[in-house]
Order: sequence, then C-alpha cells, then structure tokens
Amino acid sequence: MREDRILLSHGGGGVMMKKLIEDLIVAKLGNPILDRLGDSAVVEVGERIAFTTDSFIVKPIFFRGGDIGALAVFGTVNDLAVQGATPQHISLSLIIEEGFAVSDLERILDSIRSASGRAGVSVVTGDTKVVERGAADGIFINTSGIGTIPPGVSLSPKNIRTGDKVIVSGFIGDHGIAVLSEREGLEFETPVESDAAPVAEITSAALAASTAVRCMRDPTRGGVAATVNEMAQAANLGIRLFERGIPVHESVRAACDMLGFDPLSVANEGKVVIVCASSDAAPVLEAIRGTGLGRNASAIGEVIAEHPGKVSMQTAAGGIRMVDIPYGEQLPRIC
Amino acid sequence: MREDRILLSHGGGGVMMKKLIEDLIVAKLGNPILDRLGDSAVVEVGERIAFTTDSFIVKPIFFRGGDIGALAVFGTVNDLAVQGATPQHISLSLIIEEGFAVSDLERILDSIRSASGRAGVSVVTGDTKVVERGAADGIFINTSGIGTIPPGVSLSPKNIRTGDKVIVSGFIGDHGIAVLSEREGLEFETPVESDAAPVAEITSAALAASTAVRCMRDPTRGGVAATVNEMAQAANLGIRLFERGIPVHESVRAACDMLGFDPLSVANEGKVVIVCASSDAAPVLEAIRGTGLGRNASAIGEVIAEHPGKVSMQTAAGGIRMVDIPYGEQLPRIC
Repeated sequence: MREDRILLSHGGGGVMMKKLIEDLIVAKLGNPILDRLGDSAVVEVGERIAFTTDSFIVKPIFFRGGDIGALAVFGTVNDLAVQGATPQHISLSLIIEEGFAVSDLERILDSIRSASGRAGVSVVTGDTKVVERGAADGIFINTSGIGTIPPGVSLSPKNIRTGDKVIVSGFIGDHGIAVLSEREGLEFETPVESDAAPVAEITSAALAASTAVRCMRDPTRGGVAATVNEMAQAANLGIRLFERGIPVHESVRAACDMLGFDPLSVANEGKVVIVCASSDAAPVLEAIRGTGLGRNASAIGEVIAEHPGKVSMQTAAGGIRMVDIPYGEQLPRIC
Repeated sequence: MREDRILLSHGGGGVMMKKLIEDLIVAKLGNPILDRLGDSAVVEVGERIAFTTDSFIVKPIFFRGGDIGALAVFGTVNDLAVQGATPQHISLSLIIEEGFAVSDLERILDSIRSASGRAGVSVVTGDTKVVERGAADGIFINTSGIGTIPPGVSLSPKNIRTGDKVIVSGFIGDHGIAVLSEREGLEFETPVESDAAPVAEITSAALAASTAVRCMRDPTRGGVAATVNEMAQAANLGIRLFERGIPVHESVRAACDMLGFDPLSVANEGKVVIVCASSDAAPVLEAIRGTGLGRNASAIGEVIAEHPGKVSMQTAAGGIRMVDIPYGEQLPRIC
C-alpha cells in the first residue's frame, strides 16, 4: 500500500477500499476461502457447531506477550474450544480510525496470521470500516468464529454435580497485569507477559481423558472469580476454592498487592477452568499437563452442596472467605 | 435497568455487565439458544453454510426508514441470502461509548428484535464492550451470521456468461440519500426513506424460479456501480447497463443532482443485484416481482464480451459512458 496512514476513503466501498483489502488484508491473511471475497464465506462444517463473537478494544493495542490481533484470534477460538468444539473458521471485522498508522495495521495483521496458524483456523470472511479522526480510538477488532462439536460432546454448567473438581490450566492474572503495566507504565522486577494463547489443545486433551468433563470456560474479563461464580449460579451449587492450589506468579501477586487487585478477578487470555467428576480429576490433570501450555494445571477447588450459587475460598491462612463476582470495571479495556 | 447512561463498569465483566446483559439484552432478544449465555452458541446447521460478518458505524444512528440496529440485522442476513443461503443465526457484538443513553440502546435493541423477526433469524450469541467517553462515537455494532446453503446451490460471479441479464430488485440509492439527509439536515419535497430490508424472500424466489442464477450481491457501500464492477472483474466480461431500466425515485435523483452524486454509487440496504441466464430473465423477474419487496424489480443490463472487467452504460440520452467503481469515501459512515 502506498499510504502511511488510513484514510476515510479506505472505508468507502470503492477503489481505495479494494486496494486496502487486497494489498494488505488478503495479502496477509489470504486462503482459498477468503480469496473469493464474497459477501459471505461458504464453509463445510459438522451438523452441530459452536458459534461465537467478540469485539476487542484493548488499550494499548500492543503489550508484552501479545497485541489486539493475537487477542482477537485467541479470544474467539477459546470461546469455541471451551464448548468442546474444534475451532475451524473465523471472521475478521475492523473498525479503524482515520489516520491510524498503516505500519501498525500491518503488524496487527501479521499477528493475526501467526495466531490463526497457531490456533489452526483461517480467516474466511471480513469487513473493514473507517471512521473519522476522533470517532474511535485507533482500532477495534471483532472476530466471530465457528467450530464443529464432535458427536456426544455436550458441556454445560448445568451438568455440574456435588463433589466435582475444579481445575485451572495454569497461572492466573497474567494478561490483565501485563496490559495494565503497559498502559500505566508500571515496571516490575520480573515483567509480566500476557498469557494470550489458544486453549484448544488443553480442552481436547481433557475431553479425550474423560467422559465426565461437565463444563469448561475461559476466565477472561472478571477472571476466575467471575467464571466460577457463573458456574456456581448456573449449577445452583456451591464452589469451594483452595487458595494454596491456585497458581499465581509471584510478580502478578506482587502487582495485585500493590494495586489492590485480587488475582482471581484479573483477566486471562490463555487459560481454561474445567469442572469434571472427582474420579476423573487425576487423569484430566495429567492429560492437561501433558500439553505444553497446561503444564502448570492445578486442581483449585470442588463443588459443594453448601452456599448454592456462591463461591467461597479456603485461604492460605486457613480461614474461609466468600469470592464475589467483581462488580464493575476493575480494569477497563483489558480485551 | 436502573441507570440512564451506560457506564464503563457495564463492560467490566462483573455484576454490572451481567445486569446489562440480562436486564436489557436478553430481555429484549432472548431465545432458548441465547438464554444459555455460554461463551459460544451451539446451533444445528446444514453441512454447507454461509458465514459472514459486518460492523456498523452509521451516523446518525437513527434515520428515516431505519436505524443502526435494523441495519446490523439486514446487512448481515442479506450477505447470507445473496450467497443462496437461508439465514439462520446471528451474533451481536456491541461497542458502546461510556455515557450512551440507555433509552437509545433500548430503542436499538427493540429494532434488532423486530428486524430479526422479520428476517427469520435469532441472535444466538453476543458480546458487549464499553469504552471511555470520547473513545468511540456512541455505538458501533458488529453482527456475524450463518445460514445453510441448500444442496445444489453454488453462486459465483465466475459463473457469469456472455448474454446473461442483470436484474436489480427495486429502486436504488434510497439508503444513502436517507442517511445523508438526516446527517446534513437536508429537506426534500418528498422525504427519502432508507430501503433497509431483508432480501432473502427475493433471493429464494429467484433461485426457485431458475437454476441458471449465476450470482447475486447486495449493492451496499459503493452502490450498484461497485457491485456490477466487481462482478465484471471477477467474470472477466463486460457489463452494459441501460439507464432507462434503472429504477431511481425522483426524489433520490433530485438529491443526487443537487449533491453531485451518481445514484449508481449510492448505498442500498434492501436491494439485490442478480445475474441470470438470458432465457430465465423473464421468470426470475416475475418471481421477484411476486414478492412484496421486489415489485419494482427491473432488468438493468446485460453481460457482453466487449470491455472485459469494465462496466458501461447506455444513457437515457442514447450515448455510452463508462461506469467506474467509486474511488473513495463519497459518503462516509453510511452503514
């Protein structure tokens, strides 16, 4: 592309938009389905599919361990994976502010290409809009995704039973703290990197290891606290966490202490919370740990009959405290 | 909802977001699939589906004949319909500026509900983000959609042959002029209304009437001019339009004359351009006219061997002029 900056005319439906799409977007992300550039993509799928959407407004758009492009891919494929689906196709819709640096757009598209490759999906359809200077903050990205659900897989928090175990696939809170550090210019002794990653390898390992996986969720906005609270509410059962079992990097814990955050409420972008039958917890944990990404997986809690709809935690000090769903914007624009 | 204005905390992944989603979005748009509020929706589809995405940034968000909500539904279902698919499910992703009036959000959600009903689709999954004041312009909406393609249907501009006829399903340019009038406070003797509408009834009537429908497109940004140019380029054949056959409301023509626009380049949101074999043009036209929405359908051109990749027009005055793809932003933020 000849221009250094995105112009309003790049969104006008004419020659300029065609050039932006062909010279940059298709050049970076092309594949036989996308290359057709139809109004919609024609794809082959199984009869039962998972379908999801997410818009990404993260600020800043580049941060340690990721960027808005990688996040847009992983956020959406992870929503498919936790439904037990194999992510297959994603859409990509860009809302770009006039004046946005084309070099930044290129960097984001490169990141989307690399993240899509890692996640095993293709961008098969898309849309590009440009708004005038001041009408958006740089770039917002929407991705939607579809994936096929294998026969027999049916996950739902309604399947949760008393005695089930709660597993998390690794260290929590990294993404939120990484983005916040970047935004606020905070420096920690050990810099915190976003955990942005595709979790499908973990979710499929869990499903292969056990037919008693009840449900899975990726703890993004609102963190593990929001996720387990939603599970407890949907199941109308209690969840008891064990603080000692929850993997938190020292640097994240220190940052949270300093900032007054609870690591349980901080966003993750490459983790999954899994509830499975107690009898299958060991094989599920072993299977998850066998994947590179899940090597720090840990059992962090169990489902109890008490306090239905609520989450409590046995603290490291031995007491019990309630874990509430966070109220509002602890960390705005985190994804 | 108790609040009058959207707050940053409505996007925080916590209690406030849950209330916004449950009290407003699910209350307005609920259905058995959406009500599950999983990370992704599980839907049953055919083996071959169409998949599309569109972000809507139209300004103003309310205009004569429609609003951003109706547009978000019709824009996406129409992209499915022109692929020959039966639209089934859509996703809804909102990016809202802090301070946005909740009453306007309600009005938009009502419009989405009504438009979805009219288009025969359900909102099955969604996402809501809130950005701080000044970081977006009110509200941006992304919808993605999936629809099943019946066996045997395979539409592509590559199927176009010399001699084929080009049909448009009704009056062109209404949407663009309606939005522009609203934005610029222009008053015309006969006010122009957006044509925003779902075209699936028209596309399925055409497909039922003929097995020689080559391809269909909805002429949105860039108008009929961009659409037929894209078709000509993809087919590497010429397209000759006949100005006398092109349905344009007098008020739209007058507005275009005044503003220096070509109605061919102005956006539509409820029209479809169809290319079919010459022998089937009459039954296709009759079938389209039999639908309420397509009663003003007209044959507007034919495919020729000359000027491959280019579009020309026999003017009302009898001359021939080239119809170029518009260059850039004739009308920014039109959809």
